Amino acid sequence: MNANLIRHAVHLAAILGLYLSGAMLIPALVDLYYGHPDWQVFAVTAFMSGAISSTTFMATRAGPPPFSKKFGFLVVNVLWIVFSIVGAIPLWLSSVKLDFAQALFESVSAVTTTGSTVIVGLDDAPPGLLLWRSLLSWFGGIGIVVLGLFIIPYLRVGGMSFFKMESSDTSDKPFARLASFGRAFLVVYVSITLLCAISYAMLGMNRFDAINHAMTTVATGGFSTHDASFGYFSSIPLLWASTFFMTVCSLPFSILIVLVVRGRLDALRDPQIIVFLGYLTAFSVAVAAYHRLANGVEFHLALTYAFFNITSILSTTGYASEDYSLWGPFVVMVAFICTFIGGCSGSTAGGMKAYRFVVLFNAIRSALNKLVYPNAIYAVRYGKNTVDADVQRAILLFFITYILLWVFGSLVMGALGYDLVTAVSAVITCLSNVGPGLGSLIGPAGNFSTLQDPELYLLSLMMLLGRLEVLTVLVVLTPIFWKQ
Amino acid sequence: MNANLIRHAVHLAAILGLYLSGAMLIPALVDLYYGHPDWQVFAVTAFMSGAISSTTFMATRAGPPPFSKKFGFLVVNVLWIVFSIVGAIPLWLSSVKLDFAQALFESVSAVTTTGSTVIVGLDDAPPGLLLWRSLLSWFGGIGIVVLGLFIIPYLRVGGMSFFKMESSDTSDKPFARLASFGRAFLVVYVSITLLCAISYAMLGMNRFDAINHAMTTVATGGFSTHDASFGYFSSIPLLWASTFFMTVCSLPFSILIVLVVRGRLDALRDPQIIVFLGYLTAFSVAVAAYHRLANGVEFHLALTYAFFNITSILSTTGYASEDYSLWGPFVVMVAFICTFIGGCSGSTAGGMKAYRFVVLFNAIRSALNKLVYPNAIYAVRYGKNTVDADVQRAILLFFITYILLWVFGSLVMGALGYDLVTAVSAVITCLSNVGPGLGSLIGPAGNFSTLQDPELYLLSLMMLLGRLEVLTVLVVLTPIFWKQ
Repeated sequence: MNANLIRHAVHLAAILGLYLSGAMLIPALVDLYYGHPDWQVFAVTAFMSGAISSTTFMATRAGPPPFSKKFGFLVVNVLWIVFSIVGAIPLWLSSVKLDFAQALFESVSAVTTTGSTVIVGLDDAPPGLLLWRSLLSWFGGIGIVVLGLFIIPYLRVGGMSFFKMESSDTSDKPFARLASFGRAFLVVYVSITLLCAISYAMLGMNRFDAINHAMTTVATGGFSTHDASFGYFSSIPLLWASTFFMTVCSLPFSILIVLVVRGRLDALRDPQIIVFLGYLTAFSVAVAAYHRLANGVEFHLALTYAFFNITSILSTTGYASEDYSLWGPFVVMVAFICTFIGGCSGSTAGGMKAYRFVVLFNAIRSALNKLVYPNAIYAVRYGKNTVDADVQRAILLFFITYILLWVFGSLVMGALGYDLVTAVSAVITCLSNVGPGLGSLIGPAGNFSTLQDPELYLLSLMMLLGRLEVLTVLVVLTPIFWKQ
Repeated sequence: MNANLIRHAVHLAAILGLYLSGAMLIPALVDLYYGHPDWQVFAVTAFMSGAISSTTFMATRAGPPPFSKKFGFLVVNVLWIVFSIVGAIPLWLSSVKLDFAQALFESVSAVTTTGSTVIVGLDDAPPGLLLWRSLLSWFGGIGIVVLGLFIIPYLRVGGMSFFKMESSDTSDKPFARLASFGRAFLVVYVSITLLCAISYAMLGMNRFDAINHAMTTVATGGFSTHDASFGYFSSIPLLWASTFFMTVCSLPFSILIVLVVRGRLDALRDPQIIVFLGYLTAFSVAVAAYHRLANGVEFHLALTYAFFNITSILSTTGYASEDYSLWGPFVVMVAFICTFIGGCSGSTAGGMKAYRFVVLFNAIRSALNKLVYPNAIYAVRYGKNTVDADVQRAILLFFITYILLWVFGSLVMGALGYDLVTAVSAVITCLSNVGPGLGSLIGPAGNFSTLQDPELYLLSLMMLLGRLEVLTVLVVLTPIFWKQ
């Protein structure tokens, strides 16, 4: 039974492998166009992984896949692992000379749309390699929206079943609906990417930078083609453009589609959107005010930098315009806290997510009321819907499991010799798929290049755990999952 | 209606005030004995607060108190606030020259059995003042056990109702049972204090030090009569004696009573005791091994220091034998994590508490199993009992509310200009009623003397919130509580 499930999961992974092998031809062509010898790396890898993928595809061919929750969990894990490993191979073999742990970290960082990098000297890196990172990130963005809108709600992980209920209708053709929705999503995703690239190009980026940054903006990934990230461009309009697109891509794509396809502006009145935009504005304005008062920066500049960098963290993109950790202890604290929070569900953003906070605060209020009047009934609401007890518990458990993983990861980082600030910020920035940590090593002005293999593997695991909503991965690690 | 509740609550607070006024005569006599002029401060304060308390007692006299949950919440808050303020007055007026915020912080730190201090130069401080701090701590210990065993379970806060169910019997005389239990508790509490004092004296402390340290050990408070805390005595046997008594007083007093009165050793087989002793041993051995390997300290010494300092943090006592934050980043991380965890419920220890972790880990396991087999039933257990869904939710909400308060407090500390490590460790050490934080300022080698009034008030609030199981305080701050 388990062998059959694995066979089918590997079959699906082989299909993904085939698509990725095809995609490797893009950086190969780009390197060829720019005359960089790394085109051979991509061409050879494309051929080899294409060959392996098609052999595997043939070898594992069987009847229709056995749909079950168990199969769902297995497939999601296998797909993301294969995605990461196949993505890592050209990085590993490229002229940039990464060891395997580094290449895997970089690939996981891309496909989970995290954006932490181990590469120093991006400005002179081969164009094919830069584009490959951006492409992986962009594909990862597609993967995560599909996962968040269709698969995770079906698997009932972390209280996301809630959205399944909410968006379910009486249609008896779920797959037809899924296909039409999928097409609409791809149209919107590609359109926003193009709009973003055109905006960046019009505001001063060259075409290559514009395309790369557009892909990692829309995926809220945050990989840049320059070591100085957005600081390289020194352009206020570019910062605002990026702030706008990062914000848009932190909103649920289901709602963006309704907005674009049906032109319904009222779709934006979703509770998690209101809460997300609320804390985004509150933190940004607070940081801007502090930056103005503490460092004497002109208010409109302070506002620009604050909105850009806070949006970058909350949308879990991870660009930086400068080293905001030098603005003062309050800003460091806000950046640290924002690294946990994240954007909306069904977007490319990571973190704990806004809708969980909506439910959480309603649950706390309901619990306090119930303490005073134990016999009264206080429903926990999300907008107009009542959140049932099972979903509430799933959401509360998600928060705590997230925190426990962060604690566990930090403890290991401490044992590996990292100071408190580096350890706790490295783990949470990976778990929330943000990008930069805090401290001189991995802060907004640093990167992950000095980290050794053990911590790179640990942090890669954290990125995958966070991206797959934690429990999706943990459940595959329980003995009961593998019992016949 | 509300006015009547407040009147009765103030009446009970006046009785507490009378007891405290009487207790002030003890340090007055001690200062008189040692010939220190501060005896006048205690005598005058005793007289004044006695006069005010008796006037208030008379003025608020009325029929029997109106028993209700609402009244329960109000009384607990009013009692602990009055306890803190009355305790602060002699500290404020003493020759040590504290301003009011400092005196209040010191008093709150005592009555919540936290043990953080703003006083530098303890070695030369007036003996009456040192004894007053220890007495407040010792009384605070009594208060918290009574609260934890009887009042909080009745108020159903943070999942403690669970213990009410567990220990409830069919007796139709709950008050008679409470009185007999109360007597047994006092006998055990006083006996352990005496045993601890005698042990300390026999192992080399002078009588004054032995009595003071015994009181703050049993209360898991952690105030010392020396700036260097237990480091002053440089005695390995003293460290082990203190480790033993700190551990004992982190166990539920309900079980200690069964153990002592009925001689039933099997009472120790409680799940939370097993878990508490488990993580205590695991963290201590890990730190000892690290200290041996990283710093080349002899293993038996490393084991002594590790057990003493980790027990001190986990029991939320807060003594230090030396600056363990210099042992290396892993030890800093362990100390930080241990500051959240705490001891058993129904003890004098604070923190999140062992039984909540027992329920939490069972809830996570149950949730993971349910993801794979949605229709199977996996009960969440605590020992032989099933934990019902309401109690589970209360426990999960407790964890998250605790973390949210920590985040909120840290944000304010950041705005007040403190670096990340100082801010987050100050707030959690106060919320968990531990004592020392991390960093050069408030770490195990420092104290809270350099902090300004705003942060002292904030941290005092955190200590009270933590000590009263968070929701007990928050509920009184909701509008619904005050609605007629």
